[in-house]
Amino acid sequence: MSEQAADRPRLWIGGEAVAEAAIRYGVRFAAGYPISPGEKTLEYFAQELPRRGGVFIHCESEMQGIYYVMGAAAGGVRCAINSSSLGVSLMMEGVSYLVQREYPTLLINHSRGDVGSTGIGPSQADYFQMTKGAGHGGTRVIVLAPSTLQEAVDHVQLGLHLGDKYRTPVILLGDTALAQCSELVVFPDPITEPLPPKPWAVGDGTTNRYKWRGGGEGAGPVQASEFGTGGAREATYRELGEKWNKIAEHETRVELYEMEDAEYAIVAFGTCGRIAKTVVQRARQNGIRLGLIRPITVWPFPSQAVADAAECVRGMLVVEMNLGQMVEDVRLAVEGRVPVEFYGRQAGVLPTPKEIQAAMLELIDETKEAAVVSA
Amino acid sequence: MSEQAADRPRLWIGGEAVAEAAIRYGVRFAAGYPISPGEKTLEYFAQELPRRGGVFIHCESEMQGIYYVMGAAAGGVRCAINSSSLGVSLMMEGVSYLVQREYPTLLINHSRGDVGSTGIGPSQADYFQMTKGAGHGGTRVIVLAPSTLQEAVDHVQLGLHLGDKYRTPVILLGDTALAQCSELVVFPDPITEPLPPKPWAVGDGTTNRYKWRGGGEGAGPVQASEFGTGGAREATYRELGEKWNKIAEHETRVELYEMEDAEYAIVAFGTCGRIAKTVVQRARQNGIRLGLIRPITVWPFPSQAVADAAECVRGMLVVEMNLGQMVEDVRLAVEGRVPVEFYGRQAGVLPTPKEIQAAMLELIDETKEAAVVSA
Amino acid sequence: MSEQAADRPRLWIGGEAVAEAAIRYGVRFAAGYPISPGEKTLEYFAQELPRRGGVFIHCESEMQGIYYVMGAAAGGVRCAINSSSLGVSLMMEGVSYLVQREYPTLLINHSRGDVGSTGIGPSQADYFQMTKGAGHGGTRVIVLAPSTLQEAVDHVQLGLHLGDKYRTPVILLGDTALAQCSELVVFPDPITEPLPPKPWAVGDGTTNRYKWRGGGEGAGPVQASEFGTGGAREATYRELGEKWNKIAEHETRVELYEMEDAEYAIVAFGTCGRIAKTVVQRARQNGIRLGLIRPITVWPFPSQAVADAAECVRGMLVVEMNLGQMVEDVRLAVEGRVPVEFYGRQAGVLPTPKEIQAAMLELIDETKEAAVVSA
Amino acid sequence: MSEQAADRPRLWIGGEAVAEAAIRYGVRFAAGYPISPGEKTLEYFAQELPRRGGVFIHCESEMQGIYYVMGAAAGGVRCAINSSSLGVSLMMEGVSYLVQREYPTLLINHSRGDVGSTGIGPSQADYFQMTKGAGHGGTRVIVLAPSTLQEAVDHVQLGLHLGDKYRTPVILLGDTALAQCSELVVFPDPITEPLPPKPWAVGDGTTNRYKWRGGGEGAGPVQASEFGTGGAREATYRELGEKWNKIAEHETRVELYEMEDAEYAIVAFGTCGRIAKTVVQRARQNGIRLGLIRPITVWPFPSQAVADAAECVRGMLVVEMNLGQMVEDVRLAVEGRVPVEFYGRQAGVLPTPKEIQAAMLELIDETKEAAVVSA
Repeated sequence: MSEQAADRPRLWIGGEAVAEAAIRYGVRFAAGYPISPGEKTLEYFAQELPRRGGVFIHCESEMQGIYYVMGAAAGGVRCAINSSSLGVSLMMEGVSYLVQREYPTLLINHSRGDVGSTGIGPSQADYFQMTKGAGHGGTRVIVLAPSTLQEAVDHVQLGLHLGDKYRTPVILLGDTALAQCSELVVFPDPITEPLPPKPWAVGDGTTNRYKWRGGGEGAGPVQASEFGTGGAREATYRELGEKWNKIAEHETRVELYEMEDAEYAIVAFGTCGRIAKTVVQRARQNGIRLGLIRPITVWPFPSQAVADAAECVRGMLVVEMNLGQMVEDVRLAVEGRVPVEFYGRQAGVLPTPKEIQAAMLELIDETKEAAVVSA
Repeated sequence: MSEQAADRPRLWIGGEAVAEAAIRYGVRFAAGYPISPGEKTLEYFAQELPRRGGVFIHCESEMQGIYYVMGAAAGGVRCAINSSSLGVSLMMEGVSYLVQREYPTLLINHSRGDVGSTGIGPSQADYFQMTKGAGHGGTRVIVLAPSTLQEAVDHVQLGLHLGDKYRTPVILLGDTALAQCSELVVFPDPITEPLPPKPWAVGDGTTNRYKWRGGGEGAGPVQASEFGTGGAREATYRELGEKWNKIAEHETRVELYEMEDAEYAIVAFGTCGRIAKTVVQRARQNGIRLGLIRPITVWPFPSQAVADAAECVRGMLVVEMNLGQMVEDVRLAVEGRVPVEFYGRQAGVLPTPKEIQAAMLELIDETKEAAVVSA
Repeated sequence: MSEQAADRPRLWIGGEAVAEAAIRYGVRFAAGYPISPGEKTLEYFAQELPRRGGVFIHCESEMQGIYYVMGAAAGGVRCAINSSSLGVSLMMEGVSYLVQREYPTLLINHSRGDVGSTGIGPSQADYFQMTKGAGHGGTRVIVLAPSTLQEAVDHVQLGLHLGDKYRTPVILLGDTALAQCSELVVFPDPITEPLPPKPWAVGDGTTNRYKWRGGGEGAGPVQASEFGTGGAREATYRELGEKWNKIAEHETRVELYEMEDAEYAIVAFGTCGRIAKTVVQRARQNGIRLGLIRPITVWPFPSQAVADAAECVRGMLVVEMNLGQMVEDVRLAVEGRVPVEFYGRQAGVLPTPKEIQAAMLELIDETKEAAVVSA
Repeated sequence: MSEQAADRPRLWIGGEAVAEAAIRYGVRFAAGYPISPGEKTLEYFAQELPRRGGVFIHCESEMQGIYYVMGAAAGGVRCAINSSSLGVSLMMEGVSYLVQREYPTLLINHSRGDVGSTGIGPSQADYFQMTKGAGHGGTRVIVLAPSTLQEAVDHVQLGLHLGDKYRTPVILLGDTALAQCSELVVFPDPITEPLPPKPWAVGDGTTNRYKWRGGGEGAGPVQASEFGTGGAREATYRELGEKWNKIAEHETRVELYEMEDAEYAIVAFGTCGRIAKTVVQRARQNGIRLGLIRPITVWPFPSQAVADAAECVRGMLVVEMNLGQMVEDVRLAVEGRVPVEFYGRQAGVLPTPKEIQAAMLELIDETKEAAVVSA
């Protein structure tokens, strides 16, 4: 297709660009129930997929959506589903099923608001649910956290690729800002790394049969659960754990920005990561050696990069649009070696560079005082 | 009622005892959809509540159940809902709503299996979802983790009390072992600490109106969400955060067993905590100074107790029935001061004392070698 | 209870009076999903039932409602459900199940609008669905069609009585006018005819077991359908048919008003029946010998009364608030012996006495001309 | 497409042939929830539609199915839905909506069993619900009742054509026998009568806007209901009534078989009509002048043909696989001029020619006795 040819930058709305990328990189099935701020993504799927050989199903509920997508994934089709925070909460059982059955699926969460019935402003308050509680049973799901629309588009392809490579659902964790922005986008060249075949895909429901992890031979989606304990079931679960370890080893992604000589570091992902870059630039102009650690995968979390940085800097400031969630993962990596402070805004408010700068200066003062005291 | 009088130990089945406790300590509304291993709890509610002035609704789905309970909670009635792992996953949106609207509710999770369609053996694999991902938006919910049936019964009362005291849902995190065991139980005397009135309760839907956090005057359950950002909404969210801090400060519970002179510590909760006690006793008989740190609230997590212990012991072994979840919270508290190892079983398998002992001895050897090396 | 004592006329709103009657005559379980114009009935059940030893469940859908009621009916409890036209359409599968399993249930249909998403004015456009299509499989359900609020209240008791007597659902077919009117009501003395016991009721789901028609022994609601054909199944179906014949023989009710010497007759039920009385009175004042045949049960339809009248009158005018439905049953009974004309209004419009009178005069003219021609 | 070319007889299974016909004559959207005996139809849609430019959605429930189909119909796409008796009952609200909004839809009812949870043998017990109670509000829907698989295939095309011609849902009323038989089928040439355009179709939901009957300008499926009474709403409803009259005038279909000199007539539709032909042939061989009136449309019912026959024959026998439903329509047309008897089997039992013959001979005897008596 000509659209796959060398691309030129074009202006896209966030919600549409991720849907276009999904289709361009192979998604042929999408489902969902409308919710702000992701309605553009849904509309784009609804309009474009039928024209491009795919199917979109507008569902009665988010639960229905995730199970339709599960069906498509079981058939080996690249598929995507889109929702936001409270809508994603309704898919938690389904996500755990996708993890168990190892069905590649792209789940786009344009995160909004905070707890409960939420506002519709941008938010990072789903960090915990996405990275640690995406379904019962201790599931682990790759969570990509783009900070620009270009990166979101790149991540759509990456997410689909990693999903197929590791047979796992992948979450694209954006927010309202990303869904509603307009930015220049270049659709990247296709990833050329070959992917494994899908002998496990159920085809038309009658022909292909595969060995399910920990179970007997059977078409995927009709595989009954085993009601016993231990044995094959435990082996299966451990294999999942080993897969997660392998993903953590090979697929952890992080951007280190001005970290080579940094005395202080901000740790921030997604939209906050983007804002933090401005803070770093301004600080550098003022002679402060500030750097940025921007997790690109928030699961697996770049613990090593943070731990390495803890050997060099005097303190870290974690900035999030929530009450403090990723800060736990940062502290877990830092293990008390340097102070780790938190600055957050909530309820759809973007932290301004100025606010972050002020929080940073406070941290710098504290560490200096501490240095004086300990000296 | 005579049943409230001084109680004598009687043999109860786990699933029934928690339901009896719920009714005895004031629950007058329960709802749910049947799932093993909690079916006894459901049946008990179904049979007993109508006889004792309450209402039980057998629902079409777990989602329906959580919203029925939300309605009862909005009316100021003590209420409970019961499910297991995958069923609890379906309530995640609802739990986030309960947190936002500050409706006291007791959610009993007899945790089973692991990811997906799960076996029905005992499990602790919901630790992450319950403590960090119980709904979107970064909610925090008190999670009580009893290790015996007596404690479970005590926790039912405690959970109802804390729910009313702090206006929050509370999770009782049990497992299949707890639901299906038969043990002697004494129903404890009622907690006498006075509780705040419930001016926010909506009564018959027409009379009581209250000021909702961050919103205008209105009957609770029909309060529309605010669609703006920041302002009152951000203040509301921060107030929730402050409430969670207050809970963490006052309501963190932990059992320290043989920790006074411990050189090594096991950290384990619930059923694993109980098994670990046997390991401690046997180790002590063999002259090993082993202790147990048993978190009773897994949120708030007893970080201080763990941190304090890290000052005294040479190493810690975390034992869980999952692939390793609470171990993160332990490491976060220990901050690298001593080695923290993990031993886990999955898929409904209880770790035996012997297995744990072996893992402990390995840790002891490692730390000794390390001591030699560092000496 | 004192409320059962000799009653004095009191002013009631229609929707509330039928709910009060239901409770007074033994309903202890009701369920429903709100819809105009029956919301008063629902609210009354919601407020009063819990105070009077009963249970009301506000449902997520009409389908859920009918199945909850089915459960209560299976337990032998007098129960009621309330909806309107489109909402009743959603219960059609359930009604057929109630007929098959012979569970007494009072279904109140405050009929409104016409096809589809309907207006909320009064209507008789559900006549066909209620009398001939209340569920698949050729079910027959007793349909009571009160024309005043007093009669509606009487019919609630009658319907509950007939339901228990014949083990059948019973429909109370009202309309918006009846639901929203305010009229003086006297709650009648209880019907004293003894009713059969309910050995078939499932009690608490474990103890009572009964012989299901055409099936083996089993608790009612879990009785599996027979998948065979003929045999016991055909016998069962025929027994149902015989029961319907028996009901038609014994329970057909009709009011004949000024029919002794009538030359012409209006046939009208419910609200139209009431309006038609005014027309009869005015006609009589003008020397026209007009009478009214008012079916009280529209199923079973009073065919004999209509056939008898066809021997005496010169013509009949059927008046309905629809496009002409009962007129078919009238013509079926008349068998062409006299002209049967139709006058109808639709879409929530009540026919005025003047309009009906004009239609009547037209019929009189026609029959006179016909008489002249044939003479 | 070559498949549209002159066709040769091929053996088809009933359930697949109707699905193939639907696709061949333009259906590009189908939805449904599986139920016996129509599962072959569903499977065929599921497998074939995607290969032939269409979409099939396997739904969570029959209700969901009818509303998905409504959406497709609103878009102007030829669409079909398939279920059986109890499943069709669940669509009654939806059918009434389709009638109101005038959306052409083919609803295939492979009728089975009788009341309630039904057996899966062939049945005609849905006659009343399909012809008189297909949704609340007094809807009228064209009901085609094929008696052979060839006719069923012809009716699929006819039903789609009439649906588009009159903007109405159309029901194909088959049964288990028709769904499961194997017969030779020739797919007929396309009907060439031009059809009206669909300016009312909503296209992609944004561009086309149309004047809805009785309402303002608006895209079809989002048209709000009018809550007023009378006026435009009454006019709309009357226009629907006029359309139904027009359909009755032009589209009533009936087969008269050996009726020219018949002294007696059987009236039977569908599978019973087919069996009755055998009875007629045998009777003729025995010198009895028996004929068959076989309604092809059961709504509109061929009242005129029956009335005409009543002028010639001495008696009629109505044969149905239910307790007697169409017999009412026959009697309504006959108006008592000749005896009308009924013979029926139920619960999945096909009446045998021998049984019908016996019932016929009884009728002949009766009418002869009656003739003697009256002579």
